[in-house]
Parts: sequence; C-alpha cells; structure tokens
Amino acid sequence: MDELHGSLGDPVLGTMNFLNGITHRYPQAISFAPGRPYDGFFDTDQITQYLSRYQEYLEKGGATSGDVRSALFQYGPTAGLIREVIADWLSLDEDIHVAPESIVVTVGAQEAMLLTVRALVAGRQDVILVSSPCYMGITGVGRLLDAEMAAVPEHPDGFRCADLEAAIRAERARGRRPRAFYVIPDHANPSGTTIPLETRRELLELAAREDILLLEDSPYRVVSPGRQLPTLKALDRHCRVVHLGSFSKTLFPGARVGFVVADQRVVDATGRTGLLADELTKIKSMVTVNTSALSQAVVAGMLLSADGRASKLNTRTSAYYGKALRDVLDQLDQEFSEDERTALGIRWNKPTGGFFLSVQVPFSADNTALKRSAEEFGVIWTPLSYFYPEGGGEHGLRLSVSYLTRDEIGRGIERLGRFVRAQSAISPEG
Amino acid sequence: MDELHGSLGDPVLGTMNFLNGITHRYPQAISFAPGRPYDGFFDTDQITQYLSRYQEYLEKGGATSGDVRSALFQYGPTAGLIREVIADWLSLDEDIHVAPESIVVTVGAQEAMLLTVRALVAGRQDVILVSSPCYMGITGVGRLLDAEMAAVPEHPDGFRCADLEAAIRAERARGRRPRAFYVIPDHANPSGTTIPLETRRELLELAAREDILLLEDSPYRVVSPGRQLPTLKALDRHCRVVHLGSFSKTLFPGARVGFVVADQRVVDATGRTGLLADELTKIKSMVTVNTSALSQAVVAGMLLSADGRASKLNTRTSAYYGKALRDVLDQLDQEFSEDERTALGIRWNKPTGGFFLSVQVPFSADNTALKRSAEEFGVIWTPLSYFYPEGGGEHGLRLSVSYLTRDEIGRGIERLGRFVRAQSAISPEG
Repeated sequence: MDELHGSLGDPVLGTMNFLNGITHRYPQAISFAPGRPYDGFFDTDQITQYLSRYQEYLEKGGATSGDVRSALFQYGPTAGLIREVIADWLSLDEDIHVAPESIVVTVGAQEAMLLTVRALVAGRQDVILVSSPCYMGITGVGRLLDAEMAAVPEHPDGFRCADLEAAIRAERARGRRPRAFYVIPDHANPSGTTIPLETRRELLELAAREDILLLEDSPYRVVSPGRQLPTLKALDRHCRVVHLGSFSKTLFPGARVGFVVADQRVVDATGRTGLLADELTKIKSMVTVNTSALSQAVVAGMLLSADGRASKLNTRTSAYYGKALRDVLDQLDQEFSEDERTALGIRWNKPTGGFFLSVQVPFSADNTALKRSAEEFGVIWTPLSYFYPEGGGEHGLRLSVSYLTRDEIGRGIERLGRFVRAQSAISPEG
Repeated sequence: MDELHGSLGDPVLGTMNFLNGITHRYPQAISFAPGRPYDGFFDTDQITQYLSRYQEYLEKGGATSGDVRSALFQYGPTAGLIREVIADWLSLDEDIHVAPESIVVTVGAQEAMLLTVRALVAGRQDVILVSSPCYMGITGVGRLLDAEMAAVPEHPDGFRCADLEAAIRAERARGRRPRAFYVIPDHANPSGTTIPLETRRELLELAAREDILLLEDSPYRVVSPGRQLPTLKALDRHCRVVHLGSFSKTLFPGARVGFVVADQRVVDATGRTGLLADELTKIKSMVTVNTSALSQAVVAGMLLSADGRASKLNTRTSAYYGKALRDVLDQLDQEFSEDERTALGIRWNKPTGGFFLSVQVPFSADNTALKRSAEEFGVIWTPLSYFYPEGGGEHGLRLSVSYLTRDEIGRGIERLGRFVRAQSAISPEG
C-alpha cells in the first residue's frame, strides 16, 4: 500500500468502507445513512420513450436517420451533445441564462468537480477553500489531485462571509493563493443549512473583492419543496460563479449525467480569448473523453418530455421528500420532549428542503457508537465527523430522509431515541 | 492561462485542436485522421432490445421488478454492475480467466488509464514507461496527474525488450522508480505494429525480473480479422499484467464503457489483503462515482445477445476493417511503384489488423505540410510526431482506415500520392 498513491490511505475512504460494512452486516437495521433518491416513481419502461423523444428532437432539428445513428453510436463532442437542452432548462427553471458553449456535460457532478479543481490548481501554492463540514466528493478530488484544500468553519446556523474572508487572509499570509470556495448554498450536504439571500449577495461581493471563484454545487434545489432562493449563478454579475449541476437527484442517478457552467473568460497560450468551459473540456478529454451519448440522450429526452422543465418532473418527488423531512422533524419532536432535549443536550436543525439534517448529541458519535447503534438498536446514521476535512463534528450525526418510507421513519426515529438515551447514559460527557 | 494547471498548456492539446480545425475548415477533404469505428452496421432501434435483454438476464437471476428498477435507476456499485458478464466474455473470447471481483467497469479505457496511473504513481520518484510513439490518452493522463512518463523508443519493426530494459535501468540510475510499462501489443495506435508471441513471453519475464507491471491496452483485437495472438494477460502467470479494455470499438463508442482487470494482491493499511481492483474502485469513487447504469445495461445486453461473445457481434465489422486495410495497402502499392518508392524515399508498414498504419515520407510531416495537404490536395492525415512524447516521428504520418468507404480510400490515396510528390519536390531533404 505504501507503494500506491496517498489518496488511497485517506481516512475518509476507510470510514466510508466502515459505514458500508455496517450497512451490509445489519441489513435489518433502518438506515438514515444513504443519500439515495427515492425510486418509487420511476418507470423503467419509460427509458425507451425518453430515448425516442430525443431522437424526434434531433429529427425536428433537421437530423437525418444517419445523423441520429451517429449521435447515439459514435464518440461525441467532448463538451457534450445536449448543451442546448441543458441551457434551456437552466433558463426556464433556474433563471440562469448562459450560452450552451459555457456548459460542459460531465459524468455526474463528481467529474465536474474534478475538472474544475484540476484547471484551477496549477501548483502547490494554490488552495481551494471548502465549507466544513462539506461534501466528501470535493475533498476526495483534492486528495486525488494532490490539491490543497482548506476548511472554512460553518456555524450551527450556517455559513458566514466573515469566516471565508478570514480564511482567505490566513491562506494568503501562509503564502498560498486561494483560487475558489466550494459551497452548496441550498440544503447543504451534510448539514442541511441554506444560505440566506442577503448572505449570497455578500458572498458574491466578497468573491469579486478577493478575486476568487465560487464553485456552486446545486444537487437538491429542484427536489426540494416550495420556491427556492436564486442560485449564486443567477445573481452572478461579474462571472465569479462556476455552477456545478447533477441530474442524479432531479432525473435519476443511473444516467450519471451532470454538468458545469463555466462562462469565465480565459486568454490561452496563443493570446486567443476563450471560456473556462473550453479548458475544462480539454481536461475532460484526458478523464472520460466524453459522457455516454446514451445517457445524455435519455436525460435530454426526459427534460424535453416535460417542456424542458426538470421542476415539472419533480412535483411528486419534491412533495415526497418535503413530507419525509417534515415526518422526521415531527417524529424527533415527539420522541424527545423539550425537557428531555435540555436534559440530554440533544438538538437538531430544521432544513427547509434537501435530503439531510444534522443532529447534535451529548456523546461521541463515532464508529464505535455507530456499530452499537446498528447492532443493539437497529438504526444506522452517518457520523458527521466524516465530513470535516480538518477535524470536528465529533458530536454530530447526519440523518438522510430521502430513501425511507413513512413507516420506516417512525420506527427509525423511535430506535434512534432509545439509542441516544442508552448511549448518553454510558458516556454522558462524550 | 498561466493561472491554470500546466496540462492545459500541453502541446498535444494544441496540435489536436489544430487537426480539428483543419478538419472543420476543409470539409471536402478526405480524412485519414479519425480513429472512429464504422457505424454502418449499427441499428439504433436495437438499443431497446439490448436493454430488455439485460433486464431478462437480471430477472432470470432472481431479480424482482423492483430490483431491476433499482439497478437501472440508482447509484450502482462503484466497481460496476456487469462485472460477471465482462468476466464471461473475457473467458470465452480472450482466454482470460479472472474473477469478476478483479474487474472495475470504467467510463471507457481512458478512465481505466487514469485510475491505474493514479494508483501506481505515489510521488515524483515514480515513473510510467510508455512506448514511443504511443497513444495520447496515456500521456494525457500523465500530464493531468503530474505523473512522470518516460519514452521507450519503438523500432520500425516494433517493440524490443532490450529497449524497455535499458529505459528501466536509465530511470533507476536517475533515482526514479519505474512502476509500469504501457503498451498496445496488438495493432498499436498509432504505428499499427503487433508484438510477436515470443517477444510477449520475454516481456512478461522482464516485467517479473524488474518488478514492474505491464499496462496492456487492447482496443483493436476483436475488430481485427483472423485469429489474434494471446493477450499478455492470457499469458500472465505472475500477475504482472493490468489489462485495460474498451467496448468502444467492439460494441459502440456512444456507450462509453470500458474496464480494467487488476487482480494483483495489495496489502492495505490495516494489514488486510485485497486486490488492486479494490484500490482502483476507491479512486473511481472520486472521479465518476460509477459508470452509467444505462450504458452498462446496454453493453451487457449486447454481449448476452451474442451468447457472451463480442467476437460474434464483430464478424461483419472485422471483415470490413480488414478489407479497408487491404484496400489502403493495395492502393498505396498501385500509387507508388517500387522504383518511385526508392526514388522518393517513401515507405509504409503492413499491419495485420487494427485501424492504423504509418507512412514514412521524405519531408517534415508537420502542421504546415498538413495544412497544404488539406487545402491544395484535399487529403487529411495525422502527423505521427503528435504521438512522440519526447520528440521524434517528424517524417511520419498516421493513416486511419476505419471510417472511410472503398471509394474514398481510392480517391484519398490518389490525392495523398499527388501531395507526397509535390511536397517532396519542395523540400526533398525534409
């Protein structure tokens, strides 16, 4: 192992393996761990219809049957086949108005992160700032590329610009060049917090003032109930935002289609001005060459079948997830009375959407506690500490609400209640 | 640009852009440049049948309709859904007998290269050896990951073990640790050469003796006519070979499905023994998370529809490519008499399969020559120098035979003849 790349020794990989192992060993346990979308509304037979819908679209655009065959059969353009369809969707659902040329279609948002971090980190002096706790996908990319990442602590009520500003200054004082700040503004993974509108405006100003980019990840917006705040990209007047997107939650994960919007201007070696998207495309040619044409076709067909609006496809799912989130919050309220909450020292946040909420407990929510929870109480959750790139979160756990039925939620929270009481009695100090 | 990662300044990217630009500017030119498979035998409507075939297979294996839905809809296992189907195919068509657990399904062979190089290159001291000329995908990965690559020169008649041995010694003398040698043993891209059986055996012995791995890339075997030599992996007695595969040529590129066989034993940080495939899977979780379930399903359905044999699906295509290759060689023979060949100093090799052959000309086959060839003579080819990571190949050009009709080949070689004569008259010294 010491002959292999350092990323393979990353503790995050070990902990994820531990969590998977626990899930495998206790199949009867109710699991609040996986951030998987609910698949009950998906109809496998429709895949063929979506594929046909995209073929019709190509034919209406003047494609011959040979052109359609080439589009599905051949190596496609590295930047993607369906950039126009994605640009239309962004315009209709997200009030993001960008040229198709500024979009690169990727193998999920994960590849989009890899391309962006690779482009921006030119050497050891460059650093990407990430909120802490934060999604593991971005820190994983950092490890893989030997790219430096630095944490910006998130408060219980969410992100504050002052902390980002302090982190930028601290990194500069260390001789480093902060390139970008990665953030999920809406219903973050893992914390569930959302950045208020005023803070979004401040963040954009801060990015312009400090000359950094904002890497905005947006997986949970369209699957959350009610009206969402505008994205950073929709508010972006100075091309400070690289917007990362995924259709894994809004359409389906099995397609593995995501994208990145990168409309920043770049002057290349020959003095020609292009877009950051062009540079990301070059990197993609060394990672996956292109995104499955088949998957792109099904994704485009699905969007076209809803007049270009992913939101239309998600009226049922967003209501379902909203209900699940309310059920979990209601059950927690029922399970722990106000008095018991104070006595035990347990509290949780109240996200307005997304898949996750975080719970603070009076003991160390580590792998030992997780094993006991699964084995003796039949309930699984994710230690929040997994998501802290520089340590922290020892007393937190993440609950995912996306994948369980109402009945499982009821029984799961009951089991969680029994576990929390028992564990608090053993190690009340944590 | 100087604020972006160094890989973006790679001359290979610039030259590929130049080639694409030429192709775009001279659409009437006959192009021997693209290594695209021929799509005339592909029927778009069959995609649905392949998808159904895979669903049937799952159902026969005991899957409920819910299981089938989950397989296609959800995030799948990072290592892949269809490892058993691929293992069966390798066993039937390639005499490679490996456990499904040693396979990782990837987004084309490109991602397989990225995962493998990332795992093996732990630091600046590690180096991957590549044949020169060699496929750009592997050197691109090296640039992307800041991984050192060193060239092993190929002779006009192909690879020689002595050169690899010398390169290993030279790298060690420089204080570097050679980890692996990347090679396409059959009908290489770009040169078209094939390593003889005896040299394969020698190469395996050399790898064991020098403690390096062999990264065997194999895209053109199943689409080549006649019986193929055994792969390095089929001859591998000491787990020295990591076998990289792609279904882009044998099934279709639009699926973007490849794989890597990595059955090497690795002892992990906790002292547990696993497979190199497990480590590659961990890296994949940071690159693409998983390969499109949709694409995997269609690929598996396609293989299952031919009783697991990709070779059965390629009887027509391999005959087609074999014929195209013979046509090109015949036309070259007709175009240039023996006397003219000697007088001009033009020669070419005679590959037995694959998509490519290389032609040596008496002038510098650079971008200026390419532009003239396209503009004045209506014929496009790829400068062989693009494929030399450390310089060389200035007098070579690569011809791809896979994508042209018989008529285009005839007219194309005629145009090439006119161009070669005219260019030789201008700069006979090169």
